Amino acid sequence: MNYRHIKHTLAMPSPFAQRLDKVETSAIRELFKLLGKPGIISFAGGFPDSALFDVQGIARAAAAALASEPAAALQYCASEGYAPLREELARLMRAAPGAPDVAPQQLMVTTGSQQALDLLGKILLEPGSTALVEAPTFLAAIQSFRLYGARVVGVPIDADGVQPEALEALIAQHKPRLVYLITNFGNPSGATLALERRLRVLEIAARTHTLIVEDDPYGALYFDAPPPPSLLALSAHVPGSRDYVIYCGSLSKTLSPGLRLGWMVAPAEILARANMCKQFADANTSAFAQATAAHYLASGALPAHLDKVRPAYAARAAAMAGALHQHLGAAASFTAPQGGLFAWVRFARDGAPVDAGALSKRAIEHGVAFVPGAPFYCDAPSAADAACARLSFATAAPDTIREGVARIARALAEC
Amino acid sequence: MNYRHIKHTLAMPSPFAQRLDKVETSAIRELFKLLGKPGIISFAGGFPDSALFDVQGIARAAAAALASEPAAALQYCASEGYAPLREELARLMRAAPGAPDVAPQQLMVTTGSQQALDLLGKILLEPGSTALVEAPTFLAAIQSFRLYGARVVGVPIDADGVQPEALEALIAQHKPRLVYLITNFGNPSGATLALERRLRVLEIAARTHTLIVEDDPYGALYFDAPPPPSLLALSAHVPGSRDYVIYCGSLSKTLSPGLRLGWMVAPAEILARANMCKQFADANTSAFAQATAAHYLASGALPAHLDKVRPAYAARAAAMAGALHQHLGAAASFTAPQGGLFAWVRFARDGAPVDAGALSKRAIEHGVAFVPGAPFYCDAPSAADAACARLSFATAAPDTIREGVARIARALAEC
Repeated sequence: MNYRHIKHTLAMPSPFAQRLDKVETSAIRELFKLLGKPGIISFAGGFPDSALFDVQGIARAAAAALASEPAAALQYCASEGYAPLREELARLMRAAPGAPDVAPQQLMVTTGSQQALDLLGKILLEPGSTALVEAPTFLAAIQSFRLYGARVVGVPIDADGVQPEALEALIAQHKPRLVYLITNFGNPSGATLALERRLRVLEIAARTHTLIVEDDPYGALYFDAPPPPSLLALSAHVPGSRDYVIYCGSLSKTLSPGLRLGWMVAPAEILARANMCKQFADANTSAFAQATAAHYLASGALPAHLDKVRPAYAARAAAMAGALHQHLGAAASFTAPQGGLFAWVRFARDGAPVDAGALSKRAIEHGVAFVPGAPFYCDAPSAADAACARLSFATAAPDTIREGVARIARALAEC
Repeated sequence: MNYRHIKHTLAMPSPFAQRLDKVETSAIRELFKLLGKPGIISFAGGFPDSALFDVQGIARAAAAALASEPAAALQYCASEGYAPLREELARLMRAAPGAPDVAPQQLMVTTGSQQALDLLGKILLEPGSTALVEAPTFLAAIQSFRLYGARVVGVPIDADGVQPEALEALIAQHKPRLVYLITNFGNPSGATLALERRLRVLEIAARTHTLIVEDDPYGALYFDAPPPPSLLALSAHVPGSRDYVIYCGSLSKTLSPGLRLGWMVAPAEILARANMCKQFADANTSAFAQATAAHYLASGALPAHLDKVRPAYAARAAAMAGALHQHLGAAASFTAPQGGLFAWVRFARDGAPVDAGALSKRAIEHGVAFVPGAPFYCDAPSAADAACARLSFATAAPDTIREGVARIARALAEC
C-alpha cells in the first residue's frame, strides 16, 4: 500500500498514530550499518563481549530447567514472573551494596529492562506530562518515553552524576511524572552518582513527591570497588523516600542479553499497574529463559563469572585510557572509567571543541567506529557537548583498542 | 506511597496516565485465583497441555543452539528477529494451506503474538480512532487496543466467523484503523471464517482501504481437515488486498508458550514502524528462545509433533461434545469444535438463557471451572450472549472432561 500517497490525499488522514511523529529510528542504528566494512575496529556497541559468556553454565542451567520442571519452563507463567526467578532476583538484590530489603513480591520480571521503561512510560506518561532524564542519557529511554507523548527534559550531569541543585530546580519547574537516572557507570556518560548526591536525590524525591527511576544494568561491572549503595538501598535511610524509588535491574550485561531478562522493584501500586499492562504487552516473559536464569542463579555461578568478567573489562578500559592519553593527549578529555562498558570522551583540536559527528564519519574512513554524543541528548546539544562521543571498550582486546585509538587520532588530525 | 490519598488531593492530580482508566485486570485472572481449590476440574485455561510438549526435542534444540552458535544465541539480536528463525518461519508459512508467498524480510519476530497486538495498537491506534473486533473476541486484544486510547467496537459473528455485511456496514460507519479477526478456531468462539467470507473480507478491505489483522494461533491445531487458506494466502487472489492484510502467527499453541515466540507478516511500511517501536519496547525477543526455535524447526520435528497433538485434542473435544449432549441435551447449544482449544457453549434452562456468570460461580462450588462469555464482548452483551461460556477441552483427559461436564449439569440444575 502506498502510504505516502494516502498521507497526501486530503480525503484520508495518515493511517498511523500521531505518537510516531515524535520518534525516529536511532542514529546508532544507521551507524551500525557501516560496521560491516572489513577490518573496522568498533567502539560503537552497547553490549557485553560474547566471548566472555558462561556458555557452559547457561547450557547446564537450561538443561536442568527442562529436566526438572519441563511443564513450567515451557508453559505460560504469571505475568509478574516465574516464582523461583523472582526469589533468586530478590536474593541477588539483597546481596548488593547496601543490602536493600527486597521481597520477591516487590519485584516483577520484565523482558529486558527496556520493557520496564516501556511499561513505566505506559502507566505514568501521556501528552502534557514531563520526564526528566540525564543529559546525556540512554537513547532508547528518551524514545520510549516520547512514544507515550511525554516531553523529555534533560538535567545536567558531571562525572559525579546528576547535579542535585539543577534537578531540584527542574522538578519545581516541570513537576515531572518521573526522573530517569542511570546511577552506576552511566550510558553513555560512564558517570556514577556520588553517595552524597544519592542521599540528596532521595531527600528531594520524598519532599517533592517525585518518582525516581533508577536504572542499574552496569552496577555489578565495577573494576576496583563496588559503587555506592543503590537509591533503593539508601532509601531505608531517608524517611519517606522508598515510596518514590523504582529500581530497574538487568541480567543482560552480567549474564546474557540473549535471555532478555530484567526486573523492576517498585511500590505496590506502580507494580500492580505495570503488571496489568504487561499482560497486554507480551503476557509474560519467556518462562524458558526465566527458568534457565533461575537455575543459573541458584547454582551460585554468577559471582565467579563476574570475577572473571570484571578484570577483563578493567584491562580494556585501562588500555583505552592509556591509548587516549598517549595518542590524543589534551585533545581527549575524559574521566577514567571505574566500571561498566563506556568511556565518554570530549574531543578538541587546538583547544576548540571538535564536532564528534563529523569526527565519527572521518573515523569510519580510518577504520574505527564509535557513537557521537549528540543523539544521547534529548535537546540539541551545545558545541561543547556535541564534541563528546561514547567509546565502548567492552568488546575489543587491549591491542585492538590501542590501534583503534591511534586511528581516531589520525582522523582527528584531519578534522 | 498512598496514591489514593494523592489522587484525592486537589493540589496533586493522579500520578498515572489516563489511558489506564480504560482497562482493568481481566475477569479471567480473578477467576484463576479460585482454581487452587482441591479437586477442581478446569475448563478455564487458554493454554495447550503441558503434558504434550516435545520436551526432548526442545531440549535438543536448545543444546544445539548453544553448542553451534553460542555468541548469537546469548547476545542481543536485530529487533526484527534472529535471521535463521525468520527464514524458518517464512518456510513454515509457505507450507501452510494456500502456500502464501512470504519472504523472511516480510516478517518480524514478536515476543508472543500478544506483542504483535501491542505494537499494532501503538503504531495504529490513538484517542479518536476505532478498532473493530469480533463479538466475542480475545479479551487481551480488546484491552491492548483500549490502552492506546482506541474505541473498540464489536462485529457480530456466527459459526462461520465474522458476518461480511455487518463488517462492511461498521467499516463505513466507523472508518476503523484496523479490524481484528481470529480466523481459525477462534478464542473464545471456536468459529472458523468460511472460505467465501474470507474472499468477501479481502474484497471489502481492498475497496475500503481497511487494515485486517488476521490472528492465527490455532490454525495448525485442526482435527480432521486443515482450515481454509489464510487471508494472507488468499490475498493473492483478490487484487489489491495483500497491502491490507497483517498476519500474526504464534508458536505458543503448536510448540510451547514458554518460548514466547510469535511473528507478524505485514506490508513494509507497517513492519518498519512496528519494528521501530519494538526497539523501544523490549529491544528484541530473546535470542536464546529464537535460536532454540530455529533449531527445532530446522530439525523438521514440528509436523510429527503436531500429528501427535491433533488427535489428542480431537479426542478431548469429542469427549466434551459427547458429554454436553449426554448430560445437558438441549440446555447446551454449541457447534462441535473442528480444531483449536475451545468449545463455545450457550446455556439455557427451560428454553430461557441462563446467565453464564452466575452459572460459573455455582459450577465452582460443584468443582468445575470455566470462563463465562461476558468479558469477551467489548460492550455489555445481550442476555443471549451472556448465556455463553468458553470451555477449554485442551488440558483434561476425556474421563475428566465427562465428569466436569456432569458437574456443570448439576450446577445448571440449581440455577
